[in-house]
Amino acid sequence: MKLSRLGEFGLIASIQRRTPKGRGVKIGIGDDAASVANCRAASLVTADLLLEGRHFDLRWMPFEDLGYKALAVNLSDIAAMGGIADYAILSLGIPPRLDSREIDAFYRGFQGLADECAVALIGGDTNAADQLIVSVCVIGHAAARPVRRSGARPGDDIYVTGTLGDSALGLKFLKRRARSERPRLHPRALIRRHRRPTPRLAAGALLAQNGLATAMIDVSDGLVQDLGHICQASGVGATIEADRLPLSAAYRALCAKDGIAPALSGGEDYELLFCARRKDRGRVEKLPGRAGVAVTRIGVCTAAHRKVAILDASGKALKIRAPGHDHFRR
Amino acid sequence: MKLSRLGEFGLIASIQRRTPKGRGVKIGIGDDAASVANCRAASLVTADLLLEGRHFDLRWMPFEDLGYKALAVNLSDIAAMGGIADYAILSLGIPPRLDSREIDAFYRGFQGLADECAVALIGGDTNAADQLIVSVCVIGHAAARPVRRSGARPGDDIYVTGTLGDSALGLKFLKRRARSERPRLHPRALIRRHRRPTPRLAAGALLAQNGLATAMIDVSDGLVQDLGHICQASGVGATIEADRLPLSAAYRALCAKDGIAPALSGGEDYELLFCARRKDRGRVEKLPGRAGVAVTRIGVCTAAHRKVAILDASGKALKIRAPGHDHFRR
Repeated sequence: MKLSRLGEFGLIASIQRRTPKGRGVKIGIGDDAASVANCRAASLVTADLLLEGRHFDLRWMPFEDLGYKALAVNLSDIAAMGGIADYAILSLGIPPRLDSREIDAFYRGFQGLADECAVALIGGDTNAADQLIVSVCVIGHAAARPVRRSGARPGDDIYVTGTLGDSALGLKFLKRRARSERPRLHPRALIRRHRRPTPRLAAGALLAQNGLATAMIDVSDGLVQDLGHICQASGVGATIEADRLPLSAAYRALCAKDGIAPALSGGEDYELLFCARRKDRGRVEKLPGRAGVAVTRIGVCTAAHRKVAILDASGKALKIRAPGHDHFRR
Repeated sequence: MKLSRLGEFGLIASIQRRTPKGRGVKIGIGDDAASVANCRAASLVTADLLLEGRHFDLRWMPFEDLGYKALAVNLSDIAAMGGIADYAILSLGIPPRLDSREIDAFYRGFQGLADECAVALIGGDTNAADQLIVSVCVIGHAAARPVRRSGARPGDDIYVTGTLGDSALGLKFLKRRARSERPRLHPRALIRRHRRPTPRLAAGALLAQNGLATAMIDVSDGLVQDLGHICQASGVGATIEADRLPLSAAYRALCAKDGIAPALSGGEDYELLFCARRKDRGRVEKLPGRAGVAVTRIGVCTAAHRKVAILDASGKALKIRAPGHDHFRR
């Protein structure tokens, strides 16, 4: 059914019907505000605004994946504080031309990840808009003291979870396919990483609980740019060894000619980038088994305030052309 | 300075610089998530998405007023639960053609009301967009048991705070002025009510703390439609006496020819509409002195499930043509 026929209140009723109430939810969707139990004395709060044509393109982003990803990118911010996510608020601006089945698919993707991570959808807002607008706010709590961007010290090791650059390469394939250039190899793994990034909640919480991360951020704008944020907040510099960057099998098999640029500045990896004291190296390297994700040491913090250097195998500094995204300058 | 020159991170830094940290804020703007102290064991959470061209028009909405109003409409939702607001999260989609002074003015209006109501801005997101997008989430706590929409019973009195219809009439004057039709009288009071609605936080909290309101909602979509939400949630009907509707002096002086339609279905009043037991009439009528706003009894709840009737002075039912807003059907 077209949304223009279902109407605003029909849509809200249908969202309300299908949303499970969730642990801790006293008043859920459908009143002026939700009422929820707080898990701890303090809450973590994060928000992301995703816009059609800027952050996603419906030509190559299925609605169900978009719903999943809209929640995932927020959970990734909670993970980057070492936190546990509890509640989500979802506001949508929806073009009335869309069919209610498309919005159903969006909610299916969103709710699927919410169920997986024990997050309750508790409210939001729905409006008509010219283009699809997705605004998400997530409330969680810290498993231990939250890990900030500002605690790195010269000499700390630099680590990243998972692999880098897959999402950017997946997007490149999707754009090429939209122009009907058929790649010979099917880069399913890369496309999946673009559409359904995994928020590293377990790894983030383990790092916080064990006091291992001195500083942490999630890689959303590209490794170099997000490492720059840690360097700026911590007052340190960083040296990255290019040949240590973790690249997936699909990246190596399909995109060797792209070099390491997608891993350095591709963005949307939603992996955790963190620093840890050198003396904790042994403990950090035992983490993957418990966190369910690889952890790779890629460099070291330096005293060269805010300077990020990427060294090749011979120790020579590489030039970085596009460090990452700036939404207004793009 | 044009935002395209200032850049995303320049803008974030400037917001961070001018935002006071606020009570209870452990980690504010500038990390992956904020960390805030919870005031009670439970939180109230609400969100509103405001879109240029749908909810506001920059031709007659100054940026400073828009910032004020974006927070006010969310505080109004907290007021409608009988709650106290603590924290705000603000996400903006900003056309890069805008000047940073315009965004400064928006934040000035937002922060002005936040200061007034002891609300701390703790985070959000900023992106480039084709049109201005304002997404706000407010977290608060209940002063007592939250007041829902569902507690009204047949025989309960129906009340509204302040006056109705001013905002809709203010908007009408603004649109007329944009077409260079100069009204002879200057409807400043009406325009101010459209641009700077007062969230009725004190009245809402007093009603909740004293256990007076059986059901409550804020009037955002028009009296008839929002009363319909109470009727639906409570399983009651309602009868409103048209000549009891509280109209402002400006409304009566400038807009007598508009009749009561703007008061019934104009929308954006952001007054509190609530029900109370008949036996509490004396206590409710003592409220205005303490809440700083008039409270007017306008009707009674009936057993006629979901039926809202508006009676004229002779007791005859009036026909209501446009009950209120539906964002998808408009």
